[in-house]
Amino acid sequence: MTARDFELACPPPFRHRTVQLAHGGGGRLSRELVEQIFIPAFGGAALSARHDSAVVEVPRGRIALTTDGYVVRPLFFPGGDIGKLAVCGTINDLAMTGAAPRWLAVAFVLEEGLPMEDLHRVVASMRDAARASGMEIVTGDTKVVDRGKGDGMFITTTGVGVVPEGITIEPRAVRPGDVVFVSGDLGRHGIAVLSTREGLTITGALESDCAPLDGLVAALLSAGVVPHCLRDPTRGGLASALNEIALDAGVDIDIDERAVPVNETVAGACELFGLDPLYVACEGRLVAFVPEEHAAAAIEVMRAHPAAPEPARIGTVRDNAAPGRAGRVTLRSRLGMNRWLDIPAGEQLPRIC
Amino acid sequence: MTARDFELACPPPFRHRTVQLAHGGGGRLSRELVEQIFIPAFGGAALSARHDSAVVEVPRGRIALTTDGYVVRPLFFPGGDIGKLAVCGTINDLAMTGAAPRWLAVAFVLEEGLPMEDLHRVVASMRDAARASGMEIVTGDTKVVDRGKGDGMFITTTGVGVVPEGITIEPRAVRPGDVVFVSGDLGRHGIAVLSTREGLTITGALESDCAPLDGLVAALLSAGVVPHCLRDPTRGGLASALNEIALDAGVDIDIDERAVPVNETVAGACELFGLDPLYVACEGRLVAFVPEEHAAAAIEVMRAHPAAPEPARIGTVRDNAAPGRAGRVTLRSRLGMNRWLDIPAGEQLPRIC
Repeated sequence: MTARDFELACPPPFRHRTVQLAHGGGGRLSRELVEQIFIPAFGGAALSARHDSAVVEVPRGRIALTTDGYVVRPLFFPGGDIGKLAVCGTINDLAMTGAAPRWLAVAFVLEEGLPMEDLHRVVASMRDAARASGMEIVTGDTKVVDRGKGDGMFITTTGVGVVPEGITIEPRAVRPGDVVFVSGDLGRHGIAVLSTREGLTITGALESDCAPLDGLVAALLSAGVVPHCLRDPTRGGLASALNEIALDAGVDIDIDERAVPVNETVAGACELFGLDPLYVACEGRLVAFVPEEHAAAAIEVMRAHPAAPEPARIGTVRDNAAPGRAGRVTLRSRLGMNRWLDIPAGEQLPRIC
Repeated sequence: MTARDFELACPPPFRHRTVQLAHGGGGRLSRELVEQIFIPAFGGAALSARHDSAVVEVPRGRIALTTDGYVVRPLFFPGGDIGKLAVCGTINDLAMTGAAPRWLAVAFVLEEGLPMEDLHRVVASMRDAARASGMEIVTGDTKVVDRGKGDGMFITTTGVGVVPEGITIEPRAVRPGDVVFVSGDLGRHGIAVLSTREGLTITGALESDCAPLDGLVAALLSAGVVPHCLRDPTRGGLASALNEIALDAGVDIDIDERAVPVNETVAGACELFGLDPLYVACEGRLVAFVPEEHAAAAIEVMRAHPAAPEPARIGTVRDNAAPGRAGRVTLRSRLGMNRWLDIPAGEQLPRIC
């Protein structure tokens, strides 16, 4: 039993075993929640100052700011939970601009009746995930809604990172000729959550790929590889990520389906559920648009990095073939046929993040 | 009919009259929501860059960071709505450190079935409130939860502001001898929301005091008045705000109840609901702890400022009378009796912010 297991097994003796409306009321119970759960886990000078805002020192230059709400159901899934997801998701959104993650703000909307142990467990995950990337949780908020007006727990995390001087990574920087990479196989997160929700036992113990990507991005930058754009293919999967960038950069993108890594278990589950893995969410993979002259170095860095388990060169950016129409993604299928890889209209998998 | 009224009366022809799960799915409907609702209202270069994070330029020095979830019910109430509240609340949390509000991140958790017009109306309020304080909405996120798993709309706003050089306003700066001011009468917000929820018609057309306080704080600072601490008495009201500061600064605070401004309609409604106005939330008032030598200037600035409708000197900070025990707030009542003004244990008014 590790220290962490022990701590999880023996949470402090909460006065209430479940979350009460008064825990969000701004009175004594709110203060208890902060003192018994949040400060011990998140600690830090700024949080302990207990002011309406955290005040932190920044260098002159650019900061990156990102926010995401997390409503995943169930709260706990193989390979993670809503807390790890909420921290890694925000770290990754910062990393996609090249920023080093620094400060995190956390807002909970809890449903009355949520077991206090679940909250404690999620908070411990958040602490671990933040620490691993050197992020400080500096401020937060908790609201409680009446039973039946929420779903256990929603978390919104907002991150601030410091963008290195001279680095600009963004969709409109993508150029024809850029090489498209993914850092690993696709769809694990969506399938892990969906299988848990549907009570499906998948052979091969599939876990979510939920993980931080800031270390991988930092490794690329230190090796002198400056991607034109980075994107983590979360909701809507690789297909949405590529389409967004094609539209925003005004370019066409060619993808070779045979080059796109998909784990066998994921592929099998996708067949079962009637899903296309190219549309299923990852939470620990990135797509990189890299100028051709950096492509060899990029793959080398990724191959050496634990956060890129199966890096692959999957395609190329082209000039928009019909200027005037929107940028488009073409997939050369396993059978050698070309088809448009369209942006999904609807919703394959609700509540996976 | 103003341009604003016209716009609200004639929203763009949404393809869906209500929010669908797919609006949170990361596909085409998510993109439509961003293009039809968020970009037209919030505009701006950073948001339009459509990247995973917004990148903004900061001066060297200190920034303030704050986050708050808003779960108020009903979404629309006299004097405001959840959107205005979410923006003003975050502006005010920044202003309480002396920071000038600059950048705002907005995360929505929408319930499937929410009327699109409600969302459109709330977003217009947010835009107006942000503009009035010179805040730019730079990044956002939308998640949709299935019907019955939310309550129309929850909003989390996270703000970043720039703290002026040399200014440190925080609970632990409070000193014995400091004068305690409030900027206006108490409890309007809580009573306005509660009355609407309970379907009570209050004579005198009571409106929420929901308003930004950054202009008032800037006016104090430009007049050379540097408060030791500022706090907006939201959840838990004045009593909670004072108790938090007494605890965190380790001081005692004496308050004169006769000096605390409470509007007659609020007082009447409090009697009806069995509430104490000192525990009822405001969303546009501040409590200021000012060194005695700045007290005259402070009241003068507030009297001249529209955001301080009824400024009043309500008390004084004292040395902790029994060192070793926690800081404590004493109320001298209208009848001349002293009693502890305790921190509320429970929850008088759930979901008022």
